[in-house]
Amino acid sequence: MKYRNKRVFLILFTFCLSWNTFANTPKNKGYNLWLQYETVNNVALKKHYQNRIQGLMPLGDSQTIQYAYKELELALSAMLDKAFISVDNTKNLNNLVVFGSKSNLTKEFLKALPNEFHKINDEGFIIKAVSVKGKNHILITGKTDVGVLYGVFRFLRVIQMHRSIENLSMIDSPAIQVRTLNHWDNLDRTVERGYAGSSIWDWHRLPDYIDSRYIDYARANASVGINGTVLTNVNANALILTDQYLEKVEALSNVFRPFGIKVYLTARFSAPIEIGGLETADPYNEDVKNWWANKAKAIYERIPDFGGFLVKANSEGQPGPQNYNRNHVDGANMLANALKPFGGIVMWRAFVYSEHDVTDRAKQAYSEFVPYDGQFKDNVLVQVKNGAIDFQPREPFHPMFGAMPKTPLMMEFQITQEYLGFSTHTVFLPKLYEEVLQSDTYAQGKGSTVAKVIDGSLSDVKLTGMAGVSNIGSDINWTGNVFLQANWYGFGRLAWNPNTSSKTIADEWLRLTFSNNNNFVDALTTMLIESREAVVNYMTPLGLHHIMGTGHHYGPGPWVSNLSRPEWNPVYYHKADEHGIGFNRTHSGSNAVEQYEPKVANMFNDVNSCPGEFLLWFHHVPWDYKLKNGETLWNGIALKYQEGVNQVKNMISIWDKMKPYVDEERFNNVKMLLSIQFKEAKWWRDACLLYFQQFSKMPLPKTVDKTEQNLDYFMSLEFPFAPKD
Amino acid sequence: MKYRNKRVFLILFTFCLSWNTFANTPKNKGYNLWLQYETVNNVALKKHYQNRIQGLMPLGDSQTIQYAYKELELALSAMLDKAFISVDNTKNLNNLVVFGSKSNLTKEFLKALPNEFHKINDEGFIIKAVSVKGKNHILITGKTDVGVLYGVFRFLRVIQMHRSIENLSMIDSPAIQVRTLNHWDNLDRTVERGYAGSSIWDWHRLPDYIDSRYIDYARANASVGINGTVLTNVNANALILTDQYLEKVEALSNVFRPFGIKVYLTARFSAPIEIGGLETADPYNEDVKNWWANKAKAIYERIPDFGGFLVKANSEGQPGPQNYNRNHVDGANMLANALKPFGGIVMWRAFVYSEHDVTDRAKQAYSEFVPYDGQFKDNVLVQVKNGAIDFQPREPFHPMFGAMPKTPLMMEFQITQEYLGFSTHTVFLPKLYEEVLQSDTYAQGKGSTVAKVIDGSLSDVKLTGMAGVSNIGSDINWTGNVFLQANWYGFGRLAWNPNTSSKTIADEWLRLTFSNNNNFVDALTTMLIESREAVVNYMTPLGLHHIMGTGHHYGPGPWVSNLSRPEWNPVYYHKADEHGIGFNRTHSGSNAVEQYEPKVANMFNDVNSCPGEFLLWFHHVPWDYKLKNGETLWNGIALKYQEGVNQVKNMISIWDKMKPYVDEERFNNVKMLLSIQFKEAKWWRDACLLYFQQFSKMPLPKTVDKTEQNLDYFMSLEFPFAPKD
Repeated sequence: MKYRNKRVFLILFTFCLSWNTFANTPKNKGYNLWLQYETVNNVALKKHYQNRIQGLMPLGDSQTIQYAYKELELALSAMLDKAFISVDNTKNLNNLVVFGSKSNLTKEFLKALPNEFHKINDEGFIIKAVSVKGKNHILITGKTDVGVLYGVFRFLRVIQMHRSIENLSMIDSPAIQVRTLNHWDNLDRTVERGYAGSSIWDWHRLPDYIDSRYIDYARANASVGINGTVLTNVNANALILTDQYLEKVEALSNVFRPFGIKVYLTARFSAPIEIGGLETADPYNEDVKNWWANKAKAIYERIPDFGGFLVKANSEGQPGPQNYNRNHVDGANMLANALKPFGGIVMWRAFVYSEHDVTDRAKQAYSEFVPYDGQFKDNVLVQVKNGAIDFQPREPFHPMFGAMPKTPLMMEFQITQEYLGFSTHTVFLPKLYEEVLQSDTYAQGKGSTVAKVIDGSLSDVKLTGMAGVSNIGSDINWTGNVFLQANWYGFGRLAWNPNTSSKTIADEWLRLTFSNNNNFVDALTTMLIESREAVVNYMTPLGLHHIMGTGHHYGPGPWVSNLSRPEWNPVYYHKADEHGIGFNRTHSGSNAVEQYEPKVANMFNDVNSCPGEFLLWFHHVPWDYKLKNGETLWNGIALKYQEGVNQVKNMISIWDKMKPYVDEERFNNVKMLLSIQFKEAKWWRDACLLYFQQFSKMPLPKTVDKTEQNLDYFMSLEFPFAPKD
Repeated sequence: MKYRNKRVFLILFTFCLSWNTFANTPKNKGYNLWLQYETVNNVALKKHYQNRIQGLMPLGDSQTIQYAYKELELALSAMLDKAFISVDNTKNLNNLVVFGSKSNLTKEFLKALPNEFHKINDEGFIIKAVSVKGKNHILITGKTDVGVLYGVFRFLRVIQMHRSIENLSMIDSPAIQVRTLNHWDNLDRTVERGYAGSSIWDWHRLPDYIDSRYIDYARANASVGINGTVLTNVNANALILTDQYLEKVEALSNVFRPFGIKVYLTARFSAPIEIGGLETADPYNEDVKNWWANKAKAIYERIPDFGGFLVKANSEGQPGPQNYNRNHVDGANMLANALKPFGGIVMWRAFVYSEHDVTDRAKQAYSEFVPYDGQFKDNVLVQVKNGAIDFQPREPFHPMFGAMPKTPLMMEFQITQEYLGFSTHTVFLPKLYEEVLQSDTYAQGKGSTVAKVIDGSLSDVKLTGMAGVSNIGSDINWTGNVFLQANWYGFGRLAWNPNTSSKTIADEWLRLTFSNNNNFVDALTTMLIESREAVVNYMTPLGLHHIMGTGHHYGPGPWVSNLSRPEWNPVYYHKADEHGIGFNRTHSGSNAVEQYEPKVANMFNDVNSCPGEFLLWFHHVPWDYKLKNGETLWNGIALKYQEGVNQVKNMISIWDKMKPYVDEERFNNVKMLLSIQFKEAKWWRDACLLYFQQFSKMPLPKTVDKTEQNLDYFMSLEFPFAPKD
């Protein structure tokens, strides 16, 4: 509402005012994530829902069922604007939402589901329109109360999306067992690679102060099926395993348990020395084994459903079994033995690269881990990043996927945008995740997608998992940018079902978060889907990678060449020289292609069959090389950078038209951030092109905007306090 | 609302649900501070307000007036539940709220204020029921638009407190000119001594991303008359003075300007070396003088109303003029000269103590600064902490107050509870501030209160100021504990009028923040007022001080004696031995008493006239010394510790009865925190008494609870990640 002082006008009041800038307004729209529960504005539809939902009938009285009840009541009363009766039996009532697990169902309701329960697993749910004693009800059930809770959230999503609830029949189970967020949160509340404020874990005030945010965090996760949270940074501090901190972890686990969320911790491999008073952490040492066994026992006494340990060992300075001339199997299995009696698991990260290997960092995880296939205990998951380098805007799928059929491989995606513009760049990551998950490894012939490796179906692996490195912080809207909530949401949806399409996710998330208006949803779905290609284009087109500023990873830094380890330097990755640009990973180069199945390897190895988006990942190509579109490589690179900038410009113009559909607070939040993204996209284009032009010595195509700055300017920029850890 | 499944019941819905634990609820009650603007529930009273307020008539169109308009509209519509007309002239209307500065008033309104304007200063306001052309209106005016804004907030407070608005006539001006918050916020978003999350300044995303929280911060400050904010830590980083950061500071200043808030920065004395490329920061060096002059010019080109610099020099490792054998006057005046052409000021901190002075840290600031009285430039304020040590639960007033009649002395209070239990302990600090401000320095005879020193009235000082070290962070409720919002509020009220009583502040704040119910307000006012004495009792009774854990200052640590500088060790302050306890600052000891006026000095010097609360501050007293209440000193100490614990227990029982008056979210927040406070009060009592008992060798009085722990246990506790910086 604009302020006017020149004429008389009436100010109309609704119950909720629209001053975005003022406190007493619905600021928590950002806080509320995809659980907005907006009142249904279509009268007929609202009537339909109101008629079909007359009351609530919870079965069972676990905390989980109580939370399911609260969620239904909160959501339905807000969306349908009506009161409900709550009953403990159907009496003569019609149109109840009946919810409870199988063991709490009455005979009549059980009879209405003759053939359903064998279709779901322990976390699955059944939502079904049933007729019992001549009355119609909606039944939400599962084998466990948590399954019921998942069903309740799914049922609410139907209404949130303004879909019909006639003849409901939905049966679904998660395809992956361990669906975790990884918080790289430190005990001092800093967050490594966190771009949304400080850690939401207020360690100092735990265990006695329970921030209500913990509960909302759990609700949000449960609503998309996330069932685990690793509370602490993979660059771990052993103190988290002391009683002083375990008491705090226990308090959090008590909050999360009713929502089906298990707590995991990162285990610092040298903890027996640092907090145990031992002189070694050698996994073959009996005292060390006992120490871990006792530690596990102590943890499970506090937290009977403790999930287990996530371990980063012998990577980037972290201690590990190699410090004692043991290997990853020795380390992982020792911890697995400690956890086994209590049902815990070890997630052992494969993100390793050594300064002593001079050939190609991309090859190292595969080289180190694949020989161990089949040697890990059955409660070990090897956690593998989606690509062989490190969460770049685009990487080919990690060659380990498909290469270890006897080992459960867990996917590690990054939700926080370490290499994708932090929280200021709107990038819809489910598109990236989908690309990886649908990549074909050819491990068992055509159709051997990464998704099938991850969900265990490709080689009948029992234990399955997917991890997402969280982008959550203490900002009121959780992720610093409301659009980045979509990446948390999308991760959860893909962990539940890795074959969900990114378009479906975008459509759902937009409806739940903003509006069901089709003009809005259509325009924004397009914008979100394109946003991932935009960031690839303006940062690292055609297979370029790891050319960002060092340390903080903020902005372009292709010129950096002075870091102590060769593979920390951008020049190591782009290898630009007067002859051309790109990393030769073919048979004539590092031969990294060889780590893929022959069918894939051959495709990547041949410059003609290598997909354009991976050209410079696998090939060192001359500047005047002709691309498939007829452009020279130099022009092609330049045009891609410009295209990225243009795409962001287009995102801005789409967003500007969305004002009618979005509250002012969130509208302005996104608008300011898109304008930062535009500025930084141009920065990337200009800095990279000026730098590479030194080698290509070729002019820019006409359609590429010129910069007024020179390369020295860009190289002089420093950001000592860019968020990092 | 409790979950029940045993009987049929109807759930009644109001528009706002009461699930405290769920997101889609009025979570922002904590966020909304004392600007809740609850609907008036008394029908007659609401009618009274509705009748007397028919519409709004803003005069002028500055941003400040626009914000005043928005605030009125937001607040009145919420409180009175009605629509208003907005007009640009009175026409034939009655009962308008007319607001604008003197220069925008029409002749008729000016005529209605024949005698008022000379009673206010530039920031003052007039709120008056006036009759113009036979119609009644409420006029809110002042000499400036910011004065009008202050008047608007004051007017709203009348309604928030459910007071009559008949025949309004309120005229008020701030008694102190510079009313600043000091943020000890670092550029990496950590906050030194911050206990409410990370810094609200999101430096990385400034200047382009303007968090709406910045606006709400400005509203809150303006509503209590705070007119300045020092954005950065006194332990300063010179980078804030580079163009890269000044651009960000400029963006914040643009947000704050309409609210009458000036931006200040901390100036690192060595900045000319660190970011200026000079080899010295000697204040006598011409290059250094020029560098600062040019830096000031550059700042004012961006920020025409920039406030000036706050400087911590030659204190706790910070660089300063003494590095070049110059003195505080040399340093302060050099900066003052640089700022003078633009109207800026220097706030030069007197918080200095040297490791080379072995006698008494309490004496040093006075010894170092008083000889300079009259030598500082007229745009320098010397900023003095309330006591001579460091923000202890209780200190006698700083002897500098009254001792430098020719120098503007600015008060520095701490709002953040560095030494008072962080954000978990509910301590109402206006009671502490009041005690200091009402202390009599006797500098010009009886009645020479510290308040009169600060407001300049005692010796006709022109420049006046009061600073509060902020307790604000990124927690949704700003201060980590809703009760600690009162300390921010109270600081603002006392900076406006240092003679406001703490009881008035408590009463106001409770009504604005929670409820006008008298049962609630009476009980809670008592609780708040007592809370300050409680923390003194359970931490440092009878004049004890600085005996907390070192570094983080969390919990008791009277045994600490191993720090490199003697005056960093608690044993330096309590000097407990077999003969007794306390710091002899009398003529026979360090003679710190001599720094006070004779009347005060004599009172403190004589153990019989020294107030009991300062006994051990000034005297080393035998364990069997008889206190005025007849107890031995040892018993007296022990009983005070127990009394503090009992007082917290009583706070809990009071709070438990307040449930009907408080929303669940805030009720639970406070309840959990009080229970932590109770736990920690007992910890303080037990640890300190066990430690001191080693020396007294006397038994505890019967009414003092025994602990099951021993001293070794308490001494073994470590808190490596207690919030610190």
